[in-house]
Amino acid sequence: MDMAYLLDILGNENRRNILTLLSYRPCYVTEISEELKVSPKAIIDHLKILEDAGLVESFYDQQRRKYYEIANNVRIEVSISPLMFRVNVSRVDIEADEQKMLHDKYAEEVALKKDLEYSLKHLYEEFQRLNRSSIELQEAQRSVQGMMSEITGMCIDIINEIAADQIEAELLYMLVRGPTSYDEIVSRLHIPDNVARSELAKLMKRGLLTYEKGLWSIA
Amino acid sequence: MDMAYLLDILGNENRRNILTLLSYRPCYVTEISEELKVSPKAIIDHLKILEDAGLVESFYDQQRRKYYEIANNVRIEVSISPLMFRVNVSRVDIEADEQKMLHDKYAEEVALKKDLEYSLKHLYEEFQRLNRSSIELQEAQRSVQGMMSEITGMCIDIINEIAADQIEAELLYMLVRGPTSYDEIVSRLHIPDNVARSELAKLMKRGLLTYEKGLWSIA
Repeated sequence: MDMAYLLDILGNENRRNILTLLSYRPCYVTEISEELKVSPKAIIDHLKILEDAGLVESFYDQQRRKYYEIANNVRIEVSISPLMFRVNVSRVDIEADEQKMLHDKYAEEVALKKDLEYSLKHLYEEFQRLNRSSIELQEAQRSVQGMMSEITGMCIDIINEIAADQIEAELLYMLVRGPTSYDEIVSRLHIPDNVARSELAKLMKRGLLTYEKGLWSIA
Repeated sequence: MDMAYLLDILGNENRRNILTLLSYRPCYVTEISEELKVSPKAIIDHLKILEDAGLVESFYDQQRRKYYEIANNVRIEVSISPLMFRVNVSRVDIEADEQKMLHDKYAEEVALKKDLEYSLKHLYEEFQRLNRSSIELQEAQRSVQGMMSEITGMCIDIINEIAADQIEAELLYMLVRGPTSYDEIVSRLHIPDNVARSELAKLMKRGLLTYEKGLWSIA
């Protein structure tokens, strides 16, 4: 799943509204069109884009009416900070062991239809518990991002002190973010091959860089 | 910070490319324009949008050249799954105690310029450690999202069994996602006031719902 493609898709308000509607229940075109006050033609175009991206799929009910629903479990995380712009897209698939755990915990009583109302309340509590975990994880993630940004800032200050020239500084800025391949270094810094090689060798001699498995990094 | 506005901004490839460039170092318009092969006029327009959103800010260097840099620490999380479409935007601010902790740990030696190269390596290790934490948190978050999606699915199955009619089912679908106000229920389900009131009263009598602090929820 391509992050640029997904952000393009989510960058449209009507498509976001369609996803919100479908997250409540499957809908057909006329319903969506009336709800959002957007022409059926435009809704069909948006649904086509969402379907091509694999986010939405369709099925027919007994009356042969075509319904759309959200098809995929996707997570997108965007971090923006003075020294970082990172977009992370991942498919969410529930692990087999988690699925088994959930099954052991609830699915059996549900299957037996023993006491469905009781099971519903039980599941609802579990949902709320997971929701709280999710919020806690978000807070932890925010705190980690804040600390990463703070540390990168300190690194940049040090680099500005110790770098002999601008090229050396930019090289170190780049490597402080993580191991980088030679090709990426050359293409991002727009420097000739021989300059890159001599700069890297110089910094390696100073004991600041290492080269391992095709990647340059801070020693 | 408005989530719709931010997704609109990130839904443009040139703006994403500008943020990527600026995450490496501050740049001026001509640099960005040449790097991205986009006209300076268009770059200026994009920078204006990014600046208005508070994501980018500008400063002047000694030669009175105007530079742009990323101004803000923002985190956006989008969860898409068959029963959920949720966008979460948060500003990342490093907590005072974390800042103090980082300061105690590193800033002093950096300030003393005791051994800058040593400090750089030290900070780099810390950055890598945080990066690993961030990846672990992402995985935990994915797993929680998967389980929430699985549980909502089970809830929907139960609701389909126990609901007396379509309105009751839609009401329960909605409340299974979390406590909801009366106004939101009425406006989302498009049902008249008296119908909503009688449905809610019926479900409350069955012991399925409770009403507290202006919000309806599963009991």
